[in-house]
Amino acid sequence: MIRGTTTLIAHIGYPTHAFKAPMIYNPYFESVGIDAAVVPMGVKAEDYEGALRTIFKFTNVRGALITMPHKVSTCGLVDELSPTALIAGACNAILLRSDGTLLGDMFDGAGFVRGLLRKGLKLHGARVLVVGCGGVGCAIAASFAAAGVAGIGLFDRNARSADGLAARLSSHYAALEVTTDSNDPAGYDVVVNATPMGMNVGDELPMDVSRIAPTTFVGEVVMKTEMTAFLAAAKARGCPVQIGTDMLFEQIPAYLEFFGFPTTTPEVLRAVARLSY
Amino acid sequence: MIRGTTTLIAHIGYPTHAFKAPMIYNPYFESVGIDAAVVPMGVKAEDYEGALRTIFKFTNVRGALITMPHKVSTCGLVDELSPTALIAGACNAILLRSDGTLLGDMFDGAGFVRGLLRKGLKLHGARVLVVGCGGVGCAIAASFAAAGVAGIGLFDRNARSADGLAARLSSHYAALEVTTDSNDPAGYDVVVNATPMGMNVGDELPMDVSRIAPTTFVGEVVMKTEMTAFLAAAKARGCPVQIGTDMLFEQIPAYLEFFGFPTTTPEVLRAVARLSY
Repeated sequence: MIRGTTTLIAHIGYPTHAFKAPMIYNPYFESVGIDAAVVPMGVKAEDYEGALRTIFKFTNVRGALITMPHKVSTCGLVDELSPTALIAGACNAILLRSDGTLLGDMFDGAGFVRGLLRKGLKLHGARVLVVGCGGVGCAIAASFAAAGVAGIGLFDRNARSADGLAARLSSHYAALEVTTDSNDPAGYDVVVNATPMGMNVGDELPMDVSRIAPTTFVGEVVMKTEMTAFLAAAKARGCPVQIGTDMLFEQIPAYLEFFGFPTTTPEVLRAVARLSY
Repeated sequence: MIRGTTTLIAHIGYPTHAFKAPMIYNPYFESVGIDAAVVPMGVKAEDYEGALRTIFKFTNVRGALITMPHKVSTCGLVDELSPTALIAGACNAILLRSDGTLLGDMFDGAGFVRGLLRKGLKLHGARVLVVGCGGVGCAIAASFAAAGVAGIGLFDRNARSADGLAARLSSHYAALEVTTDSNDPAGYDVVVNATPMGMNVGDELPMDVSRIAPTTFVGEVVMKTEMTAFLAAAKARGCPVQIGTDMLFEQIPAYLEFFGFPTTTPEVLRAVARLSY
């Protein structure tokens, strides 16, 4: 229930029709009596810089959730970036601080890693493979590094994306072993599909599942279907898995804290969310 | 329930805390399954021109409700004004047309007049007094003229406001008899308080109620309390009255039609509204 007193979180991206956050945050806010709302604002890339400046002049806006196609360009439009956003080279949340400055952060990776930790995984000293070095892959790799993994394998069809991320990771984490030459999942403790492969029926798999050991933990970022062909194949080999929407629900408590709202658990959020899938 | 597919009507003004429209429109939209929402956007006067341009670039915005302090400045920022907005010199609704241009209109007066007509009043040929020639008084006077009244008395403590409105009315309605010299309500068929007097306890009355004939219809624009001291005094004299919120609820069907949504009645809107008074 939006009122004149309601604090807004602008949800900025284009197109807006597939936005999920309003149907998670708003039922949560309502269920616990927080007078706040996430409001989709459809902004095209060419309008983004001016729109961002305007939106943060709205007297009832406290922050923003940033999505496609603005996650990368946001890095150049805020006053300060978190270390994770710096390494990721992307930003999906902005807080308007009391001094009027904008702080950018990136929670995709935090949500992914938090989900693994809550499933009992030990990441400290682990070896992980991230296939796909776009915004979400970079964010996951940055959060893996922050969680103390020993080695990260990176792969992207565009080799420069993987190389750029590797350089940023190495400059922040000198002891981290980073490779960029292969999407072969053999020998990893965790492997992640951070590509869009799996969004559409008939997509090829992001890596050779027959090379994944049954003890390897397998994660997915695609949310369109919960059990993608990739996850199903991994599960068939006996691998423990994490579905794409776990990353979504696990990161929301982190956003709530970032924006200064009372926090909650992913379980509560899943229970109140009004998503159609 | 706001979704990524939801059409937004931006509710622009400052401060936002007393906005009422979201608690009327949104329950109505929800009750009839229209995927639209009125969203408050707090914009200060100095930011308004740029903000308006930005907001109408949002890909999910169809229109705007404009309130204090922007009703007058809006006239210079849209591509076309309705005749009523032109005479009122104020604009409280903007439609983004399919060709990308902005049409400004003003519905305060339409709501007021529609309420009178629905109460059985005959306005054609009537003599009406409007005390207070700010935005809402101008709008009401413009709508009275459009409804075919024979004469309008205007009064404002700032004589230039009344004179300016009189000139605009006369230029559009040559046969209309317009006076600006008195707030004496004697001899009028309808008298209207269009000043803020009555917002606060202890405000003096906008005109000498002892001079209002019991057959005169008495209207009020103050919404903060339904039965203002002015209306109560008129009612005590036997006058039929129209409360301030009638103007609000009577104008909403006109906005719904303006924005291209399915319309409804004030009674339905009152029944679903979640206003606290």
